[in-house]
Amino acid sequence: MTWKCSLAGIPYGGGKGGIACDPMNMSKKEKERLSRTYGARISPILGKWSDVPAPDMNTGGQEMVWIADTISKMRGEFEPALLTGKPVTFWGSQGRHEATGRGVATCGLELMKVLGKNPNSVTAIVQGFGNVGSYTAKTLSEAGVKIVAISDITGSYYSAGGIDIRKAFECVHSNPRRLLMNFDKVGNCEKIENDMFVDADFLFPCARDSMINRRTAGQIQARYIVEGANGPVTPEGDEILADKGVIIVPDFLANSGGVIGSYFEWAQNLQGDFWLEEKYNRKLVNLMKNNFRRVWDYAKAKKIRMRRAATMAAIQRVADVVEMRGLFL
Amino acid sequence: MTWKCSLAGIPYGGGKGGIACDPMNMSKKEKERLSRTYGARISPILGKWSDVPAPDMNTGGQEMVWIADTISKMRGEFEPALLTGKPVTFWGSQGRHEATGRGVATCGLELMKVLGKNPNSVTAIVQGFGNVGSYTAKTLSEAGVKIVAISDITGSYYSAGGIDIRKAFECVHSNPRRLLMNFDKVGNCEKIENDMFVDADFLFPCARDSMINRRTAGQIQARYIVEGANGPVTPEGDEILADKGVIIVPDFLANSGGVIGSYFEWAQNLQGDFWLEEKYNRKLVNLMKNNFRRVWDYAKAKKIRMRRAATMAAIQRVADVVEMRGLFL
Amino acid sequence: MTWKCSLAGIPYGGGKGGIACDPMNMSKKEKERLSRTYGARISPILGKWSDVPAPDMNTGGQEMVWIADTISKMRGEFEPALLTGKPVTFWGSQGRHEATGRGVATCGLELMKVLGKNPNSVTAIVQGFGNVGSYTAKTLSEAGVKIVAISDITGSYYSAGGIDIRKAFECVHSNPRRLLMNFDKVGNCEKIENDMFVDADFLFPCARDSMINRRTAGQIQARYIVEGANGPVTPEGDEILADKGVIIVPDFLANSGGVIGSYFEWAQNLQGDFWLEEKYNRKLVNLMKNNFRRVWDYAKAKKIRMRRAATMAAIQRVADVVEMRGLFL
Amino acid sequence: MTWKCSLAGIPYGGGKGGIACDPMNMSKKEKERLSRTYGARISPILGKWSDVPAPDMNTGGQEMVWIADTISKMRGEFEPALLTGKPVTFWGSQGRHEATGRGVATCGLELMKVLGKNPNSVTAIVQGFGNVGSYTAKTLSEAGVKIVAISDITGSYYSAGGIDIRKAFECVHSNPRRLLMNFDKVGNCEKIENDMFVDADFLFPCARDSMINRRTAGQIQARYIVEGANGPVTPEGDEILADKGVIIVPDFLANSGGVIGSYFEWAQNLQGDFWLEEKYNRKLVNLMKNNFRRVWDYAKAKKIRMRRAATMAAIQRVADVVEMRGLFL
Amino acid sequence: MTWKCSLAGIPYGGGKGGIACDPMNMSKKEKERLSRTYGARISPILGKWSDVPAPDMNTGGQEMVWIADTISKMRGEFEPALLTGKPVTFWGSQGRHEATGRGVATCGLELMKVLGKNPNSVTAIVQGFGNVGSYTAKTLSEAGVKIVAISDITGSYYSAGGIDIRKAFECVHSNPRRLLMNFDKVGNCEKIENDMFVDADFLFPCARDSMINRRTAGQIQARYIVEGANGPVTPEGDEILADKGVIIVPDFLANSGGVIGSYFEWAQNLQGDFWLEEKYNRKLVNLMKNNFRRVWDYAKAKKIRMRRAATMAAIQRVADVVEMRGLFL
Amino acid sequence: MTWKCSLAGIPYGGGKGGIACDPMNMSKKEKERLSRTYGARISPILGKWSDVPAPDMNTGGQEMVWIADTISKMRGEFEPALLTGKPVTFWGSQGRHEATGRGVATCGLELMKVLGKNPNSVTAIVQGFGNVGSYTAKTLSEAGVKIVAISDITGSYYSAGGIDIRKAFECVHSNPRRLLMNFDKVGNCEKIENDMFVDADFLFPCARDSMINRRTAGQIQARYIVEGANGPVTPEGDEILADKGVIIVPDFLANSGGVIGSYFEWAQNLQGDFWLEEKYNRKLVNLMKNNFRRVWDYAKAKKIRMRRAATMAAIQRVADVVEMRGLFL
Repeated sequence: MTWKCSLAGIPYGGGKGGIACDPMNMSKKEKERLSRTYGARISPILGKWSDVPAPDMNTGGQEMVWIADTISKMRGEFEPALLTGKPVTFWGSQGRHEATGRGVATCGLELMKVLGKNPNSVTAIVQGFGNVGSYTAKTLSEAGVKIVAISDITGSYYSAGGIDIRKAFECVHSNPRRLLMNFDKVGNCEKIENDMFVDADFLFPCARDSMINRRTAGQIQARYIVEGANGPVTPEGDEILADKGVIIVPDFLANSGGVIGSYFEWAQNLQGDFWLEEKYNRKLVNLMKNNFRRVWDYAKAKKIRMRRAATMAAIQRVADVVEMRGLFL
Repeated sequence: MTWKCSLAGIPYGGGKGGIACDPMNMSKKEKERLSRTYGARISPILGKWSDVPAPDMNTGGQEMVWIADTISKMRGEFEPALLTGKPVTFWGSQGRHEATGRGVATCGLELMKVLGKNPNSVTAIVQGFGNVGSYTAKTLSEAGVKIVAISDITGSYYSAGGIDIRKAFECVHSNPRRLLMNFDKVGNCEKIENDMFVDADFLFPCARDSMINRRTAGQIQARYIVEGANGPVTPEGDEILADKGVIIVPDFLANSGGVIGSYFEWAQNLQGDFWLEEKYNRKLVNLMKNNFRRVWDYAKAKKIRMRRAATMAAIQRVADVVEMRGLFL
Repeated sequence: MTWKCSLAGIPYGGGKGGIACDPMNMSKKEKERLSRTYGARISPILGKWSDVPAPDMNTGGQEMVWIADTISKMRGEFEPALLTGKPVTFWGSQGRHEATGRGVATCGLELMKVLGKNPNSVTAIVQGFGNVGSYTAKTLSEAGVKIVAISDITGSYYSAGGIDIRKAFECVHSNPRRLLMNFDKVGNCEKIENDMFVDADFLFPCARDSMINRRTAGQIQARYIVEGANGPVTPEGDEILADKGVIIVPDFLANSGGVIGSYFEWAQNLQGDFWLEEKYNRKLVNLMKNNFRRVWDYAKAKKIRMRRAATMAAIQRVADVVEMRGLFL
Repeated sequence: MTWKCSLAGIPYGGGKGGIACDPMNMSKKEKERLSRTYGARISPILGKWSDVPAPDMNTGGQEMVWIADTISKMRGEFEPALLTGKPVTFWGSQGRHEATGRGVATCGLELMKVLGKNPNSVTAIVQGFGNVGSYTAKTLSEAGVKIVAISDITGSYYSAGGIDIRKAFECVHSNPRRLLMNFDKVGNCEKIENDMFVDADFLFPCARDSMINRRTAGQIQARYIVEGANGPVTPEGDEILADKGVIIVPDFLANSGGVIGSYFEWAQNLQGDFWLEEKYNRKLVNLMKNNFRRVWDYAKAKKIRMRRAATMAAIQRVADVVEMRGLFL
Repeated sequence: MTWKCSLAGIPYGGGKGGIACDPMNMSKKEKERLSRTYGARISPILGKWSDVPAPDMNTGGQEMVWIADTISKMRGEFEPALLTGKPVTFWGSQGRHEATGRGVATCGLELMKVLGKNPNSVTAIVQGFGNVGSYTAKTLSEAGVKIVAISDITGSYYSAGGIDIRKAFECVHSNPRRLLMNFDKVGNCEKIENDMFVDADFLFPCARDSMINRRTAGQIQARYIVEGANGPVTPEGDEILADKGVIIVPDFLANSGGVIGSYFEWAQNLQGDFWLEEKYNRKLVNLMKNNFRRVWDYAKAKKIRMRRAATMAAIQRVADVVEMRGLFL
Repeated sequence: MTWKCSLAGIPYGGGKGGIACDPMNMSKKEKERLSRTYGARISPILGKWSDVPAPDMNTGGQEMVWIADTISKMRGEFEPALLTGKPVTFWGSQGRHEATGRGVATCGLELMKVLGKNPNSVTAIVQGFGNVGSYTAKTLSEAGVKIVAISDITGSYYSAGGIDIRKAFECVHSNPRRLLMNFDKVGNCEKIENDMFVDADFLFPCARDSMINRRTAGQIQARYIVEGANGPVTPEGDEILADKGVIIVPDFLANSGGVIGSYFEWAQNLQGDFWLEEKYNRKLVNLMKNNFRRVWDYAKAKKIRMRRAATMAAIQRVADVVEMRGLFL
């Protein structure tokens, strides 16, 4: 997280904590007590200017509210900037839901710009249609990119003329499990075996990790990959693609929209302000563009791949500040 | 206040406190000592993230400054966000003076929009020309609405072709008591008995409470009423108007520009920033519009009058958060 | 500083502190220890809402970082708004570097506006090409002003057709000591004796204090002087120019861009935000314009010179608030 | 309480708070939650140097522990001096149990001393054999006073030769309800109608309030009364006894051993110390003697009864300090 | 430590922390920096009413001073009660040096008392003559006990008529390594093989752990053993002795004088007081006696050996309070 | 003060502060406001464990109460240990009034002890009969010393058989200005020219500084001088006496009872306790004895006069701790 935040250009660090328990076998009341006790115990190290937690595995807005309520009662004042990932109705921020996907798409669009490609003449595959994939597709589509294939666990859907993303959203919203069930019937497209191997300029893997690996990498036809999921390309897959000259925007950079969203929530809370979604998106896109450019330029200057450039640039920033700060005692 | 803030969409709650005394019979120095002692006593419960007072009856900017000075000396630091209603020269905010009137007018203009009416073809009466009424009239007038009648304690002034609001301001500013004295002479309009019963589309009662009651409600010719004053329509008046099909935007919603102003002042102070008046107004109008829409939609969905919808929507918001927060101990 | 901040319209006061030592004879490690000890000792009186230091003579970003690191370790949390003048990579703000020069130029452009002069038909001399002078020249030049002469310790450079300021920047950046060395050769201009006496409408003295004095004031041909340096005109020089009807924008007002930059950095830190340079500049120019206008109007109203008007306006503001606050005990 | 503490010569003030509920109909768990919530709510005003609560009606050591546990968790440190009345095993103090009775007896013994009476030749009645009465009797007895009658709700017990107080304790301890059941059989004494009217020098009413009233006062044979209970003598009773020349040591003074015990517990906690019971008793007796003497001397000097002297002396002390402190603001 | 403190009847708990380093290979300056950094890091959890550290392995008074200095500078005030084990010249306490030995002897003397033995007719062996052994011997000797044998690494010294302990102290103080070197020559006694097997009533093993084990236990002639060292009797030795009917006062109880000393230092610091050595010793002896009695009575009541009684009594106390406090959240 | 406290063996340091004003020309209300403002301003650096002020020139208990009241209101809690010199009725301590005199006498008595002199056969002169002198005389007299002469501004009084000190107290108390007016008439003694030159073993100069100087030193007949006043012996006088072999106990050591009293008040406040006068005196005398002995032994060991020994011993203590503490940063 430290490196990710450093690369994302936000004033956050790293660190994780958790409780060893099985939330599947706990009642809501048990979860509440556990969340409150956990919050009370870590309270001394939390502070809007010291450590700001956010939800992760098996936790979400509700847990943040319980912890915030506990700490505010203990401290006698409620400071929303104490933690992020709060519900929109409780000091959370509008726009965060779509932030990761919008960031992934922004990286794709920036890559087109540095390559001198017009989005209107680019084709793309978006693999996965969950929170990340769907908003990646929507943002790309709105920018003029032709999405020729999308997919989720119900299958892959293809249309040479371009998928109608609005229809895909309608299909998903009409489905209780939020899936592309029967999209080939309503979406004016055909169901295919695997959208990953479709012929298109860009591939946005936004589904699971390790999808592009020793076995599949060779069949990828796209020349540019923007990683929306965490670790969609295995090290072996990475090498194969590198040999083919495929350019990859690493997850590290591409899907940092989530943690940037945490930072935006915190900043709004500090300000006692609630940004309109438009402002939120403008700032997000602007930051993602800067981050992309920094990595791109770094990679060019050092003649290395973007994945390595991202890591090096992130560490460099932290190292510079550590040196400047020196040793307290 | 809790419900009003909830409806206004601002992160504030309720609570009032005061001193039982007669400020009319106190010297300025006595008021200062009383204000300081009061501030010192309630200091432990005040905080920019716990409780933020503002002036009310018989108090104003000067009292806030005294309290702020006292608390800052006691705490060793001055945090302007501790209280609102401060003078513009002392961390107060530009735009607050006109905020209530501007909010009332915004509700009127939004009502026209949902009704599909063009402001340029709408006529209106603005009753009262104090702080609320004058800026309501000014904002409406600038949006193209024809104000056919205005009034204050000096009488009612009518012009079928529309009152020149700028002239009304000039008249008022040239009068030491800030009244429309002799406006019929300088304002190109005639003095009439009672502007409330004039034939116009909208009525903005911004004067005193209970003006529209059992006796007067039947004679109102306007089809739409936006309450600028607190409680200008009595329950009986309300029923009579409802029977006539008059739509009322309740005070609860319409005149919340004042408390929103308190919130804006607090947010600016938190940010160490001073918004330009233009930004202040843009944010105010934007928030008022959202609030109006929420109530309007709620009323439509539940098929109830706006007054009741406003109350229900306000309570709903608080109830949802209370449930989400749970019980501390 | 109190009067300067008051005039600049920023919520800051005055006060200076320092260490009696010879930094020239100290190792970096010695400076670090001294900075840390100094920070630890003054820590009790520092706070983002009580006292916010910034670097001055012989100190800069590095010293601020050492002090910030020390205090954050002692307090257990890091609040960047505690002090300003931090490096851009450590909560400092983009745009601060050019802020003073941009402010000086803004005063010049505002003076042209109130005088009804079109920048495109104005000629100017900018004396000094360090941090203040170079960005003064750049800003003026971009606004259309023809800069006929610039200078630094290497000499004065003149071009009746206007100096190419971009070339001057290139010249300076190609020189290790950041000087205009040999600019007459690369800058399409001629070297002259003293740019101060050149015939031009405006003179911006941005070099050293006391340049315009009893001996030199009489030879100045410019009708308008905007003081970029601190005290470039001596009291005697001031009288001579006044007799000649030269209008002077005093340093007090003209070069306040630096302290405004400190305030902007603090506000951004409070907000947990990082303004884009464009926003920074927009706010700076806006504030400078207001400040210029206030002094100009004050001088007109009181029929006094701008220098005196600036002082009086500054004191007036503080006096008003002092009176409003009253006496704590 | 303010006057009682003032008279007792301890640095405490007054104030009571409570919860309107029926503890009889609450489970232990419900009481715990209520106690914890109550403690959490009043926590901001509690502090070892600001306000120190102690149990009263329907509360005891357990409730204090719950509140202490809650506040210590909220504050992150446990300060036992925060509240008193804690169990001996949890920072409470040895000796507190007997403190009130010991104090009552001390007043009696001091009265004998100022009257020049030898305790060995004094007879006394102790009415009531609960916590206060039993230790009053024990202390008196150990000092040589002959207790000719004791009583509780089971009846009155008389022995002209003196009751064996040790036997009375044994009797009570062998009884599950801690009563003098059948004491006439095991205690070598006879059961009588009402011990209050027995012929003895001193009467120590330690049972209920209003026992000595219009109807009973006339029959009292004792010449000296030391009030162990709260308000055992009604105003009418007081007048009748005064007419008879009976000297009364008022409850206000005589039974202040309890609140002195709270103070001793607090002082021990501040010191992180645990006094041996002997030290506790020595300090208690010493303080009670001083307090008795102050009131006695005050009454003599002003030629008033002890009850009034006690009140006046208490108020005097507070008034003197209030005047010395002056007015803060 | 929790159980030891519980048994000792002092308001302390348990917990240890340390640094993994090799102090043997560090300069004093390196140790200082490490101590300061360690102190700074744990500072947030230290407090006179939250957690109070004391030195242990490889640390002592100097390290405590460094940590105290660091924390006092960080907090802006110096509270000596923050940590214990400080040098006598820096808020440490007189008497602490001898506390453990004095406590061991006190247990022995108490055991004699409950056994009905007169110290003047008791003989004893004190094994080890370091800090613990020497003051054990001194205290016993002063109480009249005849010490027939003492020992250290230089050998064992025996005198049927009783060792002159004052001479032993003189011998040790005249030796640079503080040993009983040549004591047989100056001490009027003979050197023997092993003092442990001497015929005496009491044995005080104050040297190393595991001295009384499977091999040696059978040869012990003493009927009573008071453990001054930590773990001088192995489990097997314990069984052998139990079979022989030997009564053992466990180390857990007998050598708790050290931690009691920490508590006394803290209490003095809280009080801003410096107890005379006599007061220190009186309180120490008093507390040790109580603790001995509690364990002795517990063992009698439960018919178990003292070692087990000590553990059970310690746990019982903590368990009782835990139950009384309940669960915070 | 730092050295004086160090020598006195109390945990206090040095530092003085004051207000430049003329209290003679101020009303009580003005003094109150000034005291409160002063207290409010220095409040941030005051704390029971950081800096504890006490009254000095032109201030006393009343000023301490005003400051304490101000700070307690600002902090929301009243901590009496914050400052000393409070009135006895407001957390001050009994015994402080006589502390300095008692300390001076104690030094004299200790000097007799080390010299092997029996107080009953010693004669003494006590110069000055104010607060210091009178209690010096009283303490000496109670210890058996024969006071042959006393004095104040009314003159010197001599009695070869010993002055009756109780009568001197009576004389002083019967005089409104608290002087020995006409003591020769009521005190069974004669009035003489100058008590300083009377033939006696000890001289206790407790009046003004510089009384024993170049001119007077030669005539002193006493062999031992204990300085009760500040600086009663000039450097020249010191040399003359040294040549005569006169032993001087320096003021530095002898009159430190006052500052010790401040420390005792603070310690009692920390403890929430009120020592009986007897305890206060016992602790005072004990501490004075130790201090005297340390200086005496130091002087013997270093073969220097007591004055120099006192200074060296004081500095040594501070230096040792400074070295042990090291450098924070």
